[in-house]
Amino acid sequence: MIKVGIVGGTGYTGVELLRLLVAHPNVEIVLITSRAESGRRVDDLFPSLRGHIDLSFSDPDNKVLGACDAVFFATPHNVAMRSVPALLAAGTRVIDLSADFRIRDVKLWEHWYGETHVCPELLSQAVYGLPERNREDIRTAQLLACPGCYPTAVQLGYMPLLAAGLIDPQSLIANAVSGVSGAGRQAKIDNLLAEASDSFKAYAVSGHRHLPEIEQGLSDIAGSEVSLTFVPHLAPMIRGIHATLYASLNEAGRAANLQSVFEDFYQDEPFVDVLPVGQYPQTRSVRGANTCQLGLTVPENKGTVVVTAVEDNLVKGAAGQAIQCMNLMFGQEESLGISQPGLLP
Amino acid sequence: MIKVGIVGGTGYTGVELLRLLVAHPNVEIVLITSRAESGRRVDDLFPSLRGHIDLSFSDPDNKVLGACDAVFFATPHNVAMRSVPALLAAGTRVIDLSADFRIRDVKLWEHWYGETHVCPELLSQAVYGLPERNREDIRTAQLLACPGCYPTAVQLGYMPLLAAGLIDPQSLIANAVSGVSGAGRQAKIDNLLAEASDSFKAYAVSGHRHLPEIEQGLSDIAGSEVSLTFVPHLAPMIRGIHATLYASLNEAGRAANLQSVFEDFYQDEPFVDVLPVGQYPQTRSVRGANTCQLGLTVPENKGTVVVTAVEDNLVKGAAGQAIQCMNLMFGQEESLGISQPGLLP
Amino acid sequence: MIKVGIVGGTGYTGVELLRLLVAHPNVEIVLITSRAESGRRVDDLFPSLRGHIDLSFSDPDNKVLGACDAVFFATPHNVAMRSVPALLAAGTRVIDLSADFRIRDVKLWEHWYGETHVCPELLSQAVYGLPERNREDIRTAQLLACPGCYPTAVQLGYMPLLAAGLIDPQSLIANAVSGVSGAGRQAKIDNLLAEASDSFKAYAVSGHRHLPEIEQGLSDIAGSEVSLTFVPHLAPMIRGIHATLYASLNEAGRAANLQSVFEDFYQDEPFVDVLPVGQYPQTRSVRGANTCQLGLTVPENKGTVVVTAVEDNLVKGAAGQAIQCMNLMFGQEESLGISQPGLLP
Amino acid sequence: MIKVGIVGGTGYTGVELLRLLVAHPNVEIVLITSRAESGRRVDDLFPSLRGHIDLSFSDPDNKVLGACDAVFFATPHNVAMRSVPALLAAGTRVIDLSADFRIRDVKLWEHWYGETHVCPELLSQAVYGLPERNREDIRTAQLLACPGCYPTAVQLGYMPLLAAGLIDPQSLIANAVSGVSGAGRQAKIDNLLAEASDSFKAYAVSGHRHLPEIEQGLSDIAGSEVSLTFVPHLAPMIRGIHATLYASLNEAGRAANLQSVFEDFYQDEPFVDVLPVGQYPQTRSVRGANTCQLGLTVPENKGTVVVTAVEDNLVKGAAGQAIQCMNLMFGQEESLGISQPGLLP
Repeated sequence: MIKVGIVGGTGYTGVELLRLLVAHPNVEIVLITSRAESGRRVDDLFPSLRGHIDLSFSDPDNKVLGACDAVFFATPHNVAMRSVPALLAAGTRVIDLSADFRIRDVKLWEHWYGETHVCPELLSQAVYGLPERNREDIRTAQLLACPGCYPTAVQLGYMPLLAAGLIDPQSLIANAVSGVSGAGRQAKIDNLLAEASDSFKAYAVSGHRHLPEIEQGLSDIAGSEVSLTFVPHLAPMIRGIHATLYASLNEAGRAANLQSVFEDFYQDEPFVDVLPVGQYPQTRSVRGANTCQLGLTVPENKGTVVVTAVEDNLVKGAAGQAIQCMNLMFGQEESLGISQPGLLP
Repeated sequence: MIKVGIVGGTGYTGVELLRLLVAHPNVEIVLITSRAESGRRVDDLFPSLRGHIDLSFSDPDNKVLGACDAVFFATPHNVAMRSVPALLAAGTRVIDLSADFRIRDVKLWEHWYGETHVCPELLSQAVYGLPERNREDIRTAQLLACPGCYPTAVQLGYMPLLAAGLIDPQSLIANAVSGVSGAGRQAKIDNLLAEASDSFKAYAVSGHRHLPEIEQGLSDIAGSEVSLTFVPHLAPMIRGIHATLYASLNEAGRAANLQSVFEDFYQDEPFVDVLPVGQYPQTRSVRGANTCQLGLTVPENKGTVVVTAVEDNLVKGAAGQAIQCMNLMFGQEESLGISQPGLLP
Repeated sequence: MIKVGIVGGTGYTGVELLRLLVAHPNVEIVLITSRAESGRRVDDLFPSLRGHIDLSFSDPDNKVLGACDAVFFATPHNVAMRSVPALLAAGTRVIDLSADFRIRDVKLWEHWYGETHVCPELLSQAVYGLPERNREDIRTAQLLACPGCYPTAVQLGYMPLLAAGLIDPQSLIANAVSGVSGAGRQAKIDNLLAEASDSFKAYAVSGHRHLPEIEQGLSDIAGSEVSLTFVPHLAPMIRGIHATLYASLNEAGRAANLQSVFEDFYQDEPFVDVLPVGQYPQTRSVRGANTCQLGLTVPENKGTVVVTAVEDNLVKGAAGQAIQCMNLMFGQEESLGISQPGLLP
Repeated sequence: MIKVGIVGGTGYTGVELLRLLVAHPNVEIVLITSRAESGRRVDDLFPSLRGHIDLSFSDPDNKVLGACDAVFFATPHNVAMRSVPALLAAGTRVIDLSADFRIRDVKLWEHWYGETHVCPELLSQAVYGLPERNREDIRTAQLLACPGCYPTAVQLGYMPLLAAGLIDPQSLIANAVSGVSGAGRQAKIDNLLAEASDSFKAYAVSGHRHLPEIEQGLSDIAGSEVSLTFVPHLAPMIRGIHATLYASLNEAGRAANLQSVFEDFYQDEPFVDVLPVGQYPQTRSVRGANTCQLGLTVPENKGTVVVTAVEDNLVKGAAGQAIQCMNLMFGQEESLGISQPGLLP
């Protein structure tokens, strides 16, 4: 059994980790921390877990955490980096779902997050947890930086095109849509049902914190710097990311059979699913599942390829992908505990 | 492995059976029938099942069905009864999720369903598939009639009170609310998102087909005839049943510790969960789960007890409960394949 | 022109007052107060009002308010009562949408609201603003207490039956459902879209503050004390109240033509609409409208009458009814500015 | 009074015309046709209109229609063109909300709509009803072709940029999102609440019928041919269009103050509202209103301008804009009957 601790278990990423881990055959959840809810039973806060977990939230304690095999950080940014050095020193492997270790360039990180990074020396050691890109490095990672929800969908959608050099890397436009759970379990008027329901809007149009992470990942894949216009939107739904990705095909791209490029690229991937020609995914098909589904076409043969990608922001975009990485890190079958189909309808 | 066939796999109950059965360790799905979609891949209709099932819909064929260990009918009423005699004769055990065998009084059935029953002689043989009431009979059932979604919630909510004789059985009022998936996967204007969203209404106020089934079940429990006013409503959500149950407490009821009555009654039940005093369930806590959660109180001590009960209409109200019964019928652990927690948020 | 001030304009009742009053031909909005948003343009907070209003929120100032013909309080309880004496002394007529003056029995008010009332001597002077009950008193009211949203629907639904003595006043059960805007524009986790969407629950089952107001109103109508079990629920929608009202018919009630009773009772009412036999209202039919629609039946002739009532909680349940009262108070046509049909779909 | 007839009054555009026209001070609705619902009271189909209209649907009859001053067609394509010649001959002015007269190139129309046009000679006579572009021509139009919902938002968003020559007309990408009412009041499984709710998807990615209409309009504005990639999406909401428009700025565009360009361009328009710098519109702000709200920025100064545009697809995208045109055609104040603010929340 892998002994697991979770720091910050009261958010949506936290409860999703719990939902998946309580059903994982080789995991034992040892502790879940929360300063605000310390002492409260987990299933009192999340009645969906009644009968599935017998723990209460506790204050974070690096000693107890350091006795775990793996610790998940399901916290806002600027939390994990304060504990990670101690945990690594204790031999615990860290799976950070926050942004603290996603960006290698510390200045860039500090610019976007407005904080001083407290352990920049660990940035180069962190492995970016996108298995479709870094599977082998993930197996041996001591410090794993899980990708953001938007970055996962955008990178998986562009990856086959950039890897094969079929598009102009300066022409990228990612129009992405998220359900409201992406904003976290925080009391904000903007995310009330009475505000966000039956409505649609763009937000952070002038710049979103996921942009540098996406550009770093896409540049790695392309082998050259990419330029991306990224506009996130909020849709009146609970879960789901839908990314509509645009790029100008170059000569090679216009000549290629793009459907085959995608199918070949992802043929061995357990959690990326290229839909047949003419089909486009909807977020509900992957609700609760660890799958990213992709569809693609070149409308009117005008030279602009359109890829649509969907995922559950809390699963493949967060907790599910983190467990996928954990499985790799601990020599488990990669899909263990995260292979259930989506909840449809 | 239990060899399973599904008749009528294109509705919401059908796809929910598939979602749960593909993950059941001891089940092999042999065939899924649909006249309308015959020849179409199941995962083409339901992309959430891509990678989980490799079958196409086929025309119903009693020979092939008769070679199964168990056949689920996820059909409208008036379908199962036409095949059941042949399947029983072939030694196949039938789990009928439709209404054909729920009501023992054939005249009552024919009154409410407006059809002539074609095998009324089997009605007395059918076992009503509410494990909390009929567990032992279910184990040996050849023909299992699964309860409707409303009847499950209403019976589980009233059962401890009626069994202990704590309420006036003539005073029952069940105010129930369903998500739209309860209306099935049928093209009806009333159930369009643009019609049903952001709205709430009662329907079938003057009489709903689940009423006689509920009254039969409650009368069995009470040991005397009950009288129920049952008003169903439609809420703008996908899944979920919420029943608010009212009854007049008799002298014994006023004296009893009702919370203890409920906790004791359900203490060994794996899928009925009595919430602590002062808590009331919400449907999302059991989304995708086979659990019925209950809460209760006596407002202002006025002598009227209020029980609130929630379930997922497609799980504990249909497919999950059917699999729970299948597990009992085939000597499996009762909760096998249906023990996952709800999807929250 | 009626010069109008609004205290507490940043909530949903406030913005709804603004939506209706900017289109009212005989109203001039003089000021809108908000301590929290003082100095901010109204249309910056509510972009739906851009081009319709050129005011900014200001701090409340009894001098400026006292120069208005009418002041609306769209505040939580415990605010209006602190300013009302001064405003009445200045000759300003007060229309209070909060709970401060709804309950005549000050002890009852203090019990439910947990505060000491600062001007109990005004309670007897306050007119309860339900035009269908108190139209003539409203015309001359100096201090108007607008009914709550639930109380409006419940009273309009029971009124014809109680007034005619057709039901047992001790047998009342009101099962009511509200959209989330009823909880106000406040940052609460429970009302986030990710929490409240796609779910349904009861709340305040053991006792809701609207109960004493409803019982007071129903007792007035009945001419004797009534006993009500009132259970409110939250539905995943923005606006709307749906009340399902149950009562035991007495002998006279069983003999009566209830449909005619309702149609006759409300035949001259501009904002109460009795649907034809066999029809039941849905909340979306009155979205944005000042109408209460009613449907009724006696299921299976069992002696329990079921009335269903819908209204928009922000219109007939709050701002619209307040303006209806204002029209009466200032000699305007009763429906002026509030006669638009609902927004459907 | 303008005597008005409506052909095809049973869809969402039809009921929205009715909602607005019953409150228009200078309009008399003479008849509403529907073959399917002939003889049924309008307010029986649409209970929101009870008390507002006293008509029943009738079979379409060109004689009666020809006696109207104006006839609105709220029909699918391929209906209006069969009656328009007769109505024009009778001196009736036609306001067609369908696609029959929107595209001047009959071959293009026939390619996209798969029908033979029955009166191509009228195409050049039809005036395209976008007041912000064609106000003067609309005043004298006998045959008015109302823009589609997507084309209205996309053209209003790009218009200031194209008119001033600030963007590369070959670089346009319009990522648009619609609420489900855009799919019409038709019984389709895909648009059931249980299918479309809590989900998001692209559709018609390879080509949507609004594309040629948009390209025709944008080319007119630009004075040269434009190339557009247009991807529509479905969001789980009732009403609303949100368009996110991308274009490469040319040298002039990079030098311009784009906010001023937009504000100047639309300063006299009653129904186009440019939000302040840094604000982006949400669809709910214009729910039920005839307003198009716009926001714009150049993310990270990368040379790609992003304009976001919202409208209510049934108002500024259909019925409201049609009435705006009617007002112009009949010498009314342009905003008469369509100036109410949006319904928020």
